[in-house]
Amino acid sequence: MTEKRTEIEELGEFKLIDLLTEPFGLQHDSSVLGVGDDAAIIDAGQHYTLVSTDLLLEGIHFDLTYCPLKHLGYKAVAVNVSDIAAMNGVPEQITVSIALSNRFSLEALQELYAGIRLACESYKVDLVGGDTSSSTKGLVISVTAVGKVAKDKVCQRKGVQPNDIICVTGDLGGAYLGLQVLNREKQVFAADASMQPDLAPYQYLVQRQLKPEARMDVVHAMRDMPLVPTAMIDLSDGLASELFHLSRASQVGVNIYEDKLPIDKLTYETAAAFNLDPVVCAMHGGEDYELLFTIRPQDLKQVEKHPDISLIGYATAAAHGLNLITDAGSAVPLSAQGWAHFGKGQ
Amino acid sequence: MTEKRTEIEELGEFKLIDLLTEPFGLQHDSSVLGVGDDAAIIDAGQHYTLVSTDLLLEGIHFDLTYCPLKHLGYKAVAVNVSDIAAMNGVPEQITVSIALSNRFSLEALQELYAGIRLACESYKVDLVGGDTSSSTKGLVISVTAVGKVAKDKVCQRKGVQPNDIICVTGDLGGAYLGLQVLNREKQVFAADASMQPDLAPYQYLVQRQLKPEARMDVVHAMRDMPLVPTAMIDLSDGLASELFHLSRASQVGVNIYEDKLPIDKLTYETAAAFNLDPVVCAMHGGEDYELLFTIRPQDLKQVEKHPDISLIGYATAAAHGLNLITDAGSAVPLSAQGWAHFGKGQ
Repeated sequence: MTEKRTEIEELGEFKLIDLLTEPFGLQHDSSVLGVGDDAAIIDAGQHYTLVSTDLLLEGIHFDLTYCPLKHLGYKAVAVNVSDIAAMNGVPEQITVSIALSNRFSLEALQELYAGIRLACESYKVDLVGGDTSSSTKGLVISVTAVGKVAKDKVCQRKGVQPNDIICVTGDLGGAYLGLQVLNREKQVFAADASMQPDLAPYQYLVQRQLKPEARMDVVHAMRDMPLVPTAMIDLSDGLASELFHLSRASQVGVNIYEDKLPIDKLTYETAAAFNLDPVVCAMHGGEDYELLFTIRPQDLKQVEKHPDISLIGYATAAAHGLNLITDAGSAVPLSAQGWAHFGKGQ
Repeated sequence: MTEKRTEIEELGEFKLIDLLTEPFGLQHDSSVLGVGDDAAIIDAGQHYTLVSTDLLLEGIHFDLTYCPLKHLGYKAVAVNVSDIAAMNGVPEQITVSIALSNRFSLEALQELYAGIRLACESYKVDLVGGDTSSSTKGLVISVTAVGKVAKDKVCQRKGVQPNDIICVTGDLGGAYLGLQVLNREKQVFAADASMQPDLAPYQYLVQRQLKPEARMDVVHAMRDMPLVPTAMIDLSDGLASELFHLSRASQVGVNIYEDKLPIDKLTYETAAAFNLDPVVCAMHGGEDYELLFTIRPQDLKQVEKHPDISLIGYATAAAHGLNLITDAGSAVPLSAQGWAHFGKGQ
């Protein structure tokens, strides 16, 4: 074979998607927004319908040696709900397709669905479709979430203006450190099966990793303020990576203040125990599923009242680039590499 | 471990889905129809939104030794479009998520997307979302299709009344025989790599297997007649299996006439060459992706004009059960086993 062969690793996920989807155009008036945001926007007449989908594979996206199936089911729904939340929408339906090898029993599958059901109740979404089939190896889960948003309230990645204030919900880096704790205990267990993991001191971090919550509470709170962010995205790949997405889509730069990053005390302490920089964990850790959004300066008063929203910086002209302003006051250009900072992917 | 373990094979796919999804209720008014039809129905205000999803795994649903990636991309879209067609809807958007191992190059992935694009153009659907990620082994494709249907034109599996006429589009059994041809050539090639497959005489059957078409043409033709079937389903698992779905959902029996089954001449001849009964291939072959629907007796004149719709039987009272009326005039109870007739799954 003399055909050209380009390795996919050479490209990176985002460049790959661009390359593959670039030749596709949108021909329906109802296709308001296609590939390249947290969810697609479809014009349903009186409102927009939002559609988001995620494909999760055992051994790539989750590890069943420490992820209970019930938590996995919950998380599979939560991460899709989070994508709908990132568009400022409310999820109403999901479909779930599962493929699994004969390693799994009915009882195991029922555990997974118990977690899916818990998430459906928690986020008020209806399971309306999907199927199950065999796999030659491992478990594969595909979830599609369908949501709704008023046409004048939808948030995209584009829309940030210079001087907009950058906000983030909750705290950062916890899910990544939860993963470190789980990986350490897994190795201890592999070396000596009589060792029982003691996860109690790390419960918050482990929970952040295994059972993240979509911030629908914040979407509802902003509806009641009322406040519509100028742009929004959820934190799946890490703050730095998501800031790059906002910045690229909106053609702005950002200044982020190190001392404004919301980092939990346990995240700080655990990072120290693992010889990791807590700020790096917060910037690049990923999987926190918090919301990152921007507001106009005049809306500052609205969000200041909310106890779980932090103001971490502001947008600048595109030419200024993306910078982390350190405690010492110097501006360090941000890197979007995310997990690569840690020497390996998840 | 003393926990109970029930093997999933003991249940079968449909019983499994029932068991898993039974505890879920629908809480949104917009969730008109949930699990258990070809697509979910969501009330979008002025119309219904239809959502269908499929998860396809290498080694389970497709075999890349004889399925070109471009055909696979086309088929992955077509089978989802077919689910929207089965609800009498028109697809407008799809999302495509892919997971693949490093065995695949960018060029291979571009072939797959070329097929997806061809199908998007052919069926007039917009690619609006999805992503790519790694897999530890093989290729996984998840497609979700979103469509639209007027509220008074939607078709479900339920709705058949006794005496309704049972119709099917196109011809049956071809896709299954195409698979037999491909499998035979694969074995010949495995035994002697210098042997080149000669698929030319079987082109129609191979095409039925590798590049099936969703019958959007028939959906549009019925809109223009105008005619709304009393129920509809697409033929993915085989005619007998789909008749059982219609019968169960509508609480009716069916009489199907052996001599009315549309079977192509090449299907007959090839079945004979493989020592297979062409009627069994037509009843249980699966993957034809034709439409099976029922009409009221007074609408007979409408469909009789259409060259590609066959009348194959009629609905009866539920107590009569499902029967195949043979050429000799005797009634043979139908079996829903589908692929099991052939001793193995696909």
